[in-house]
Amino acid sequence: MKSVYFFGGQVAEGKADMKNLLGGKGANLAEMVNLGIPVPAGFTITTDVCTYFYENDRTFPSDMENQLKEGMGKTESVMGKIFGDTENPLLLSVRSGARMSMPGMMETVLNVGLTSKTIPALIQKTNNPRFVYDAYRRLIMMYSDVVMEKAAGIEPQDGLGIRHQLEGILEQYKVENNLKTDVDLSSDDWIKISELFKDKIEKVLGSSFPDDHYEQLWGGVKAVFQSWNGKRAISYRKIEHIPDEWGTAVNVQAMVFGNTGEESATGVAFTRNPATGENRFYGEWLQNAQGEDVVAGIRTPHPLNESTKTEESKHLQSLETFLPHVYQELDEIRTKLEKHYKDMQDIEFTIENGHLWMLQTRTGKRTGGAAIKMAVDMVSEGMIEKETGILRVKPEQLDELLHPSLDLDEEVKTEVVVRGLPAGPGGGVGRVVFTADDAEEWAKNGENVILVREETSPEDVHGMHVAEAILTAKGGMTSHAALVARGWGKCCIVGCAALNIDFIKKEMRSGDFLIKEGDWISMNGSKGIVYQGQVTLKSAEPESNDSYRILMDWADEFRTLKVRTNADSPEDSKQAIAFGAEGIGLCRTEHMFFDPQRIVEMRKMILAENETERREAVMNLLPYQREDFMGILEAMADKPVTIRLLDPPLHEFITLSEEQIDELAKELNITAEKIRQRINSLHEFNPMLGHRGCRLGIAYPEITEMQARAIFEATAALKNSEINAMPEVMIPLVGSYMEYNNQEKIVRSVADSVMEETGIKFDYLVGTMIELPRACLTADEIAEKAEFFSFGTNDLTQTTYGFSRDDIGGFLPDYLGNNILSHDPFQSLDQRGVGELVSLAVEKGRSVRKNLKIGICGEHGGDPDSVMFCHQTGLDYVSCSPFRVPIARLAAAWAHLMQE
Amino acid sequence: MKSVYFFGGQVAEGKADMKNLLGGKGANLAEMVNLGIPVPAGFTITTDVCTYFYENDRTFPSDMENQLKEGMGKTESVMGKIFGDTENPLLLSVRSGARMSMPGMMETVLNVGLTSKTIPALIQKTNNPRFVYDAYRRLIMMYSDVVMEKAAGIEPQDGLGIRHQLEGILEQYKVENNLKTDVDLSSDDWIKISELFKDKIEKVLGSSFPDDHYEQLWGGVKAVFQSWNGKRAISYRKIEHIPDEWGTAVNVQAMVFGNTGEESATGVAFTRNPATGENRFYGEWLQNAQGEDVVAGIRTPHPLNESTKTEESKHLQSLETFLPHVYQELDEIRTKLEKHYKDMQDIEFTIENGHLWMLQTRTGKRTGGAAIKMAVDMVSEGMIEKETGILRVKPEQLDELLHPSLDLDEEVKTEVVVRGLPAGPGGGVGRVVFTADDAEEWAKNGENVILVREETSPEDVHGMHVAEAILTAKGGMTSHAALVARGWGKCCIVGCAALNIDFIKKEMRSGDFLIKEGDWISMNGSKGIVYQGQVTLKSAEPESNDSYRILMDWADEFRTLKVRTNADSPEDSKQAIAFGAEGIGLCRTEHMFFDPQRIVEMRKMILAENETERREAVMNLLPYQREDFMGILEAMADKPVTIRLLDPPLHEFITLSEEQIDELAKELNITAEKIRQRINSLHEFNPMLGHRGCRLGIAYPEITEMQARAIFEATAALKNSEINAMPEVMIPLVGSYMEYNNQEKIVRSVADSVMEETGIKFDYLVGTMIELPRACLTADEIAEKAEFFSFGTNDLTQTTYGFSRDDIGGFLPDYLGNNILSHDPFQSLDQRGVGELVSLAVEKGRSVRKNLKIGICGEHGGDPDSVMFCHQTGLDYVSCSPFRVPIARLAAAWAHLMQE
Repeated sequence: MKSVYFFGGQVAEGKADMKNLLGGKGANLAEMVNLGIPVPAGFTITTDVCTYFYENDRTFPSDMENQLKEGMGKTESVMGKIFGDTENPLLLSVRSGARMSMPGMMETVLNVGLTSKTIPALIQKTNNPRFVYDAYRRLIMMYSDVVMEKAAGIEPQDGLGIRHQLEGILEQYKVENNLKTDVDLSSDDWIKISELFKDKIEKVLGSSFPDDHYEQLWGGVKAVFQSWNGKRAISYRKIEHIPDEWGTAVNVQAMVFGNTGEESATGVAFTRNPATGENRFYGEWLQNAQGEDVVAGIRTPHPLNESTKTEESKHLQSLETFLPHVYQELDEIRTKLEKHYKDMQDIEFTIENGHLWMLQTRTGKRTGGAAIKMAVDMVSEGMIEKETGILRVKPEQLDELLHPSLDLDEEVKTEVVVRGLPAGPGGGVGRVVFTADDAEEWAKNGENVILVREETSPEDVHGMHVAEAILTAKGGMTSHAALVARGWGKCCIVGCAALNIDFIKKEMRSGDFLIKEGDWISMNGSKGIVYQGQVTLKSAEPESNDSYRILMDWADEFRTLKVRTNADSPEDSKQAIAFGAEGIGLCRTEHMFFDPQRIVEMRKMILAENETERREAVMNLLPYQREDFMGILEAMADKPVTIRLLDPPLHEFITLSEEQIDELAKELNITAEKIRQRINSLHEFNPMLGHRGCRLGIAYPEITEMQARAIFEATAALKNSEINAMPEVMIPLVGSYMEYNNQEKIVRSVADSVMEETGIKFDYLVGTMIELPRACLTADEIAEKAEFFSFGTNDLTQTTYGFSRDDIGGFLPDYLGNNILSHDPFQSLDQRGVGELVSLAVEKGRSVRKNLKIGICGEHGGDPDSVMFCHQTGLDYVSCSPFRVPIARLAAAWAHLMQE
Repeated sequence: MKSVYFFGGQVAEGKADMKNLLGGKGANLAEMVNLGIPVPAGFTITTDVCTYFYENDRTFPSDMENQLKEGMGKTESVMGKIFGDTENPLLLSVRSGARMSMPGMMETVLNVGLTSKTIPALIQKTNNPRFVYDAYRRLIMMYSDVVMEKAAGIEPQDGLGIRHQLEGILEQYKVENNLKTDVDLSSDDWIKISELFKDKIEKVLGSSFPDDHYEQLWGGVKAVFQSWNGKRAISYRKIEHIPDEWGTAVNVQAMVFGNTGEESATGVAFTRNPATGENRFYGEWLQNAQGEDVVAGIRTPHPLNESTKTEESKHLQSLETFLPHVYQELDEIRTKLEKHYKDMQDIEFTIENGHLWMLQTRTGKRTGGAAIKMAVDMVSEGMIEKETGILRVKPEQLDELLHPSLDLDEEVKTEVVVRGLPAGPGGGVGRVVFTADDAEEWAKNGENVILVREETSPEDVHGMHVAEAILTAKGGMTSHAALVARGWGKCCIVGCAALNIDFIKKEMRSGDFLIKEGDWISMNGSKGIVYQGQVTLKSAEPESNDSYRILMDWADEFRTLKVRTNADSPEDSKQAIAFGAEGIGLCRTEHMFFDPQRIVEMRKMILAENETERREAVMNLLPYQREDFMGILEAMADKPVTIRLLDPPLHEFITLSEEQIDELAKELNITAEKIRQRINSLHEFNPMLGHRGCRLGIAYPEITEMQARAIFEATAALKNSEINAMPEVMIPLVGSYMEYNNQEKIVRSVADSVMEETGIKFDYLVGTMIELPRACLTADEIAEKAEFFSFGTNDLTQTTYGFSRDDIGGFLPDYLGNNILSHDPFQSLDQRGVGELVSLAVEKGRSVRKNLKIGICGEHGGDPDSVMFCHQTGLDYVSCSPFRVPIARLAAAWAHLMQE
């Protein structure tokens, strides 16, 4: 097994595409060497060694020592220094480097090789004893913390470890000697402190700091491998879904110093601006400093060049003017790296006595806006193909362009009131109200309000509509609040279990926070965080962004999957068309019944004594429904509109207080007792599995008739005005073809009647929502008559997992925390379970009807991973809320490109 | 197409195995002819003609008339009479005859061929004008009703049709002429009445009664075919699941008359006693009578022979003594038929002037007890093989032997209060109480009580236990009441939607009935009927039934599928072993927590502030649980016991009234507010899909630990006393292998600890309940570690269909009524949907673990069709409530025999 890969001078044993073996850092160091870029020599110990290490009781392969010594020899020869030498000693850094970047999660030891033998030589060579002893005490601090404390098996609480104790000694020394900052300490001070450090270490850890250079090196290497299984690294991997078995590589590299004098410096840079995407070399540097000084934030870093100076930084000298020849070399390297990697690079460099050394290059992280601009620019620069440009922007990254957001700088400084599930993305700022009616009233007076509820119901919709954002204590990612808010692109946080709301007092508590009605809060709906007070809100204007428009055009060019929207109103329909929707995949009809005028008729219907009364009440709703459908079908002219027949259980329409019962009784001229009895008889233990969906239409066929009539009368009237309405009638919650056939017959018979009555012929489809496991299992039987399937993956996920989306909040945190679930299955489709049912249904459905139109209209239609799955599974379209349409379009293009 | 099959004399064109074509009656008439038994000649028009009739606008195949005339010729020649002849006329009966018997659901016309031309000839031949005119008026009544009214397209309401009007004329005639009964009417009277009838018919139906014999015949044949799609027939087919496309045959047969004089008679008989199974010729007869007279119940039928006379019938003359030679011929035919058909026959005969004619033979219906006795007797008589004997008893038929039942004679005469779902079979009689506490108190005073509730919850269990029967207004076949009642073999009716209960007044209403606390009611739990007052209850004693014991031994001999029981207590375990259970397939542990002493600890656990408190409360339950498991494992020594870890959502344990909250607050020394908050936070919208099953054990691992410890400590203690406990720990509601692995790890680690602590090694299994679609879809992943699967088909049906078993009552009647469901899927496994998931899981599970032990522990385990399915799917065992164990054993034998 080759365990050690050398890099340095003009030659490297590794290269960029060996990340799995050498880690990202190691592979890119090798690649830079191959490109002729100056990199301090060194070698990478492979991730295979890490695997071996854990599989063999934390030991190394037998021949690794030889390979390491060989690598060391080459390093020494390139750098012209000898490790442990008493004349010209080489110092080393020992750093982790995994396949994926895990910033700050693993250990690093610098200055390895400083011993009582090498210190005098280094002093002689640098003529800078203070620098050498400063480096020595840094080594002691790091090494005792990273290597020795762990080796001693001590696991101190945060802030109580050996490092903390050594820092205490340093502080005490400064106080006793009346020294203000580290800069004030002399060489002698550092010598004394080093001795104090070593004594303390021996006392606390029971062993002495090693004075042998190879002992230091092996200790460092082992500590880095061990840090792969440190607590921080493990929890980071959980969050980022990095497999435990990948392991880390270890990079051993010659030290170079940016703090050896006036002509030394250190810096970080991006080949383009990572915040805006602008094609300018962008970075920061510090004179006479080490990398950790830049990170520590004590000194203010300088801008790299003149052209990127800002109002705040214009008085600081740039590297461009201070060391022009070095800047020019760096700028050439920038160009070389971007040309080579064909992507924006995030680089680190050190200047040691006027000599430039590159320490790292990697693909740079960027904001969504920057990602779009860079992708479009690089295509127009001819650097990359359109296809690559599309794949440079993650679909999720569009989100920040589509919603207003909190000012990040302010956000990080603001106190967190509570955390919950990020149900509706973007930012929201407003004053707290606790009822929908209050929200409406305050909003009328020009106030920005945030509606806070235990959970929301259809009766809260008017308050939700006027609110800037919605916050609920209960519910999951597909609870009522979440669904409605996302539909409107509104900021929403749900499932804040820590929130205690007192609706009588109109206040809420979370820990020590007490928020009263009228208090300001700010919400980051993309992260699920609620802040105290007012954070500045930045608006979203994707239309004005040229790069965005170009990118979306390319996406449309490359995708084959259609994208529709879920919309219930003409306004939403227009919004969605502006976002590029190609039709409506789910038009829910139940919201239409909650309007005050209409709900009375609905309640009459529910309380009817017999079919005649019931039919009369239902038919009173016909004009309203027809008008609704006219509006939507007209807004979506020439585009298909899938209308779902009434779905929710009837008790949702008669959730009444005692007062409301009395009122209704008077209005309908029946006894309150009778209303109570009916409410009681409609109560269900598990309404999600109760009398809803097509089960309503089967029990009360007049509802189906009325809705079908409203749809077809609207269609005929529009056709009469030469507007091409394309309705697709969707029968919900079908579990067997018998249910489907029963309802389809009613719909088709109404269509025939309307055509006969109006003398107008029109086209329409009848199909069904596939949202029960049994529908998937018997999809062949259903497809005998159904002309389309639309997967309702919310309900399908509920029944496949046996999870109620309204109640999942009770255990989801435990599940994600224990890694029992890697994602919330209501956000990203569970491909292993739910996905298998979807595939099965597609296969069975198309086995009897080759041209069966298949889409998805669950919340997953806007999730990029799920969109990919839909493409692979052969669906015709996805449908999602208007604000996710662009994301779905881009994801569809990705899906097509990834499959090729 | 051959449309007409002749039978008569010594030759028939059909035979017994042609039932699909000739119907049951036609095939058996042919078979009797082939056996040389005297049968009036005739012919059968096939079911294919029925199909043709409906597919061709209610017309007949073109060559049918020729075939019919040919059949008529043969009939005339065998009977020595001519149809429509003016000297020796042949009269015919026209009867339906479907593949399966549909008693009284279709039409019959007798005496066809009586016209103004044939009447004089018949009078001359019989010398009995009264008989002839009586026959004539009967023909007119039947024909006008069956043929003419329908042909006129008139659909009168019940009791207002032409038949009713003719009966009115007859009654009026009798009153006017001072005649008491039909017997008092003379020949002249009947002539006058016939004329009155014909006038009325012409007036009401607008056409005259046909005087042409062939017109009569074709009208009758057509009417019989049309009656296949009459209302009564259609609804009967729905109930009995008879396909619409089978159609009926029509039997046209020479009339013979049992009412032509002293030596004429008619009767029905069974070759063995259908109520007891006793091997004696058993039947009834009436002298000088027609079949309809026996049915009408005006005259009391006589016993067939001396040996079957009872106290009530001993004064009536038997056929054996009255016409000994005819009786002997009949008895020989009895023997011949039983020998030929190798099963008990239900026969009809007519004696015309001393000549015996057989009109029908078919396999006789019988009670469960009779079925068992006949099967065992026939095997010991050498008539049939053991295998056939087993298949002669339908598994469901055992039910009546296992439960007490209402006296049938009394039952049919008692007023029905309400109907509901037959949730617990058998009979129950008692006084109504409305709370579990009342039930307990009344029962203590020696009263038999019936507990009536809206629905039951675990807190009602003490009252349910002492009640004779349980009645609930809500809930489905697998509601709490139903499950618990069936577990105890207790009579139970649920889902009586018409029942309005007033718990304040302690009374209930159903329609006009008002039942108050203390009133007596009687319940038939097998049919779901509640009666007013006290019906006599007959006890069940299967053990004392030798035939039953023999049959069950045979069943065990032939079955390969094991049968376990669902039991939660030592008592149930013993009961189940007595019924032949081979282990426990489902031991629920939640009932154990509802005991008053224990529920306090449970509530402490639920209200605990932190893990330490929670663990302490949970561990206080350990001694109780250990004791529970000791008892059950000991009762089931040497047999496997599958124990399911805690399953229900926690809020079930803290359903508290305000008073109870205050009490609990005092007891636990916390505020009532805190309890309310916790109750509120545990509230779920869909508890079935909520925080339950293994989701509890994952959130609160201490519960799993405690339960595992209780199981293993009990196992070790028993082993110490040389009792072989065989626990199988079952993790509920697993949807992914990650959940399973999490819980399994805890269970195995506790087992290790207990073995170490006690120094006793014991065997055990860990496995899971497969009750979610996702578990089926990922069964291969789960089987990597799980040692057994047990299908929880109740929950699997709920999630596959999206039906809540507690709420299905709201729409199930509509579904069954509209034929959308053919069965309640909670009673009989839905093989097409749920069954596909089960098969998939078996296949996937065994693909990674060949010897995976697989069972089923849902309610379906006791349903014969579902047991068959389990056998075919390769399951190792089924598990059901103790009282269904014998049924499952027999069904398992059936499954094995049917597959061969």
